[in-house]
Amino acid sequence: MKILVAGGAGFIGSNLIDDLLALGNQVVCIDNFFIGTRKNLEHLIGKNDNFTFYEQDLCDIGAVSRIFETEKVDFVVHLAANSDIQASARNPEIEYKNTYTTTFVLLECMRHFQVKRLFFASTSAVYGEHMGDAVGEESPGLRPISYYGGCKLGCEALISAYSYMNDMKVLIFRFPNVIGPRLTHGVIFDFIGRLKKAPSGLRILGDGMQAKPYLYVKDLTDAIVRFMDVREKGITLYNVGVESQTTVTRIADIVCEKMGLKGIPYFYTGGRGGWKGDVPQFQYDLKKIHDAGWHAAHTSDEAVARTVEEVLRCGL
Amino acid sequence: MKILVAGGAGFIGSNLIDDLLALGNQVVCIDNFFIGTRKNLEHLIGKNDNFTFYEQDLCDIGAVSRIFETEKVDFVVHLAANSDIQASARNPEIEYKNTYTTTFVLLECMRHFQVKRLFFASTSAVYGEHMGDAVGEESPGLRPISYYGGCKLGCEALISAYSYMNDMKVLIFRFPNVIGPRLTHGVIFDFIGRLKKAPSGLRILGDGMQAKPYLYVKDLTDAIVRFMDVREKGITLYNVGVESQTTVTRIADIVCEKMGLKGIPYFYTGGRGGWKGDVPQFQYDLKKIHDAGWHAAHTSDEAVARTVEEVLRCGL
Repeated sequence: MKILVAGGAGFIGSNLIDDLLALGNQVVCIDNFFIGTRKNLEHLIGKNDNFTFYEQDLCDIGAVSRIFETEKVDFVVHLAANSDIQASARNPEIEYKNTYTTTFVLLECMRHFQVKRLFFASTSAVYGEHMGDAVGEESPGLRPISYYGGCKLGCEALISAYSYMNDMKVLIFRFPNVIGPRLTHGVIFDFIGRLKKAPSGLRILGDGMQAKPYLYVKDLTDAIVRFMDVREKGITLYNVGVESQTTVTRIADIVCEKMGLKGIPYFYTGGRGGWKGDVPQFQYDLKKIHDAGWHAAHTSDEAVARTVEEVLRCGL
Repeated sequence: MKILVAGGAGFIGSNLIDDLLALGNQVVCIDNFFIGTRKNLEHLIGKNDNFTFYEQDLCDIGAVSRIFETEKVDFVVHLAANSDIQASARNPEIEYKNTYTTTFVLLECMRHFQVKRLFFASTSAVYGEHMGDAVGEESPGLRPISYYGGCKLGCEALISAYSYMNDMKVLIFRFPNVIGPRLTHGVIFDFIGRLKKAPSGLRILGDGMQAKPYLYVKDLTDAIVRFMDVREKGITLYNVGVESQTTVTRIADIVCEKMGLKGIPYFYTGGRGGWKGDVPQFQYDLKKIHDAGWHAAHTSDEAVARTVEEVLRCGL
């Protein structure tokens, strides 16, 4: 199968491409290196006959159309988005362009070139604040509180219309926090950076009790590959994640332990969340994907520990 | 109060502006006459000191920013959108620009100029196909089937994020089919046009049994004016409509009756819906707005009858 991976130079995309190639697929990747990096694909570009790379902004519908015309792909995996919620909190236009408009452009190209199969990376951020609840796929009253979550929910709605109007088969996963090799930002990254610079203490946003499920990236790509061949028209939607959670303070503990630092004082900025638009407590209802036979291989703490080791080994 | 009405030259907008001015407000209107018309505002432009008009595409963020800077409005009423679902079924970019991007631009201007109050016109199309169900505001699993519904749901999601991040107070109404004076398209309009051209018979899309609640525009503008002063931060959401419904065949009967035509044969194209993306059966759960003390003054059939009379009086 010939698969277009949009946003494939990113942390999750590059891990997924490795899996897709290992399974014998041809992969065409489009990325503009806004967040993704050439380094993530340097083992593939010019070195793997089944891999083709285009450095291209996905908002340019003319250029993306030409790639569709040339490559005649069977499947689109859409991972391109702004994944830095704090950056778009300062400038929401980042989300309008890199999250929403990229989706519109890909859907238009799929419509025009009759590509019927899509995987879309959505997010837990579409749920907004469901404090303490375990949110299921059909939870009512979605009220995203970040521009990122708002645009991703808008993408889901747009995909709903396109899939109906054009008989597309679409798999949507709502990702939780995903971590692992090639991670580029987020709390683990920040803590390691701060402790490398100044190991005398660690500033922690909020009260440190923000708890989230962290999914190991190889568990996620395993799930994508396993479920992507959807047979039904329209949207098939799953929450994907782990049932366990890790608090921010626990992440700090793991980072300090793996860096061999003892007795580091933590300075909490206080408040309920890390920043405005952050969801301080979050838990998925994972019944649907568990019933379909998939479970994450790593707990949230195991995912954090492996990621810290890998970031320390490969450098920031 | 100084109110910006975006899309105010349209059918609903121009009716609402009449009400807002009658209540002593100042109104600033932006419209690009994509669907709205100068005729709808000709009784106001240059004739009412409390009314200011800008002919401007809302997708141009620079130009819209300058209007915000000049006018210093207190409230934004956002009615600008593509309202012709059949047109965007052929070209979804119309929705991306005129429905979604206009919303993004207005929200950005509100964020920048610290405007905290918004009314947003959403739609029953966000619900998709809930065949036979009476859908309430918190119905789960929204799956719009038209590009219009997809983009409107995306706008709601974007507004959710902006209202949280910027402490906005937002009223969203999900409009049903709205009809009345200054109507520019839709089934009533089509039937009158066809019968004026060729009164020997009437072609009806689908099986004629598609039943929808039609709300009279003055009932809608009454509800907007009554509820727009929202006190709570975030989104306050209502379905707005009538409990009665009118079938397409009944509309044809009313049109023939008001035109004085008897025994006109109807030719049904057959099938369940009028066109792809059309929702053939639809009913709101209106408990929330009824509990808040509002009911439509006209039934669906009365709204159709009054509208037919007015369209016949004023011409197509």
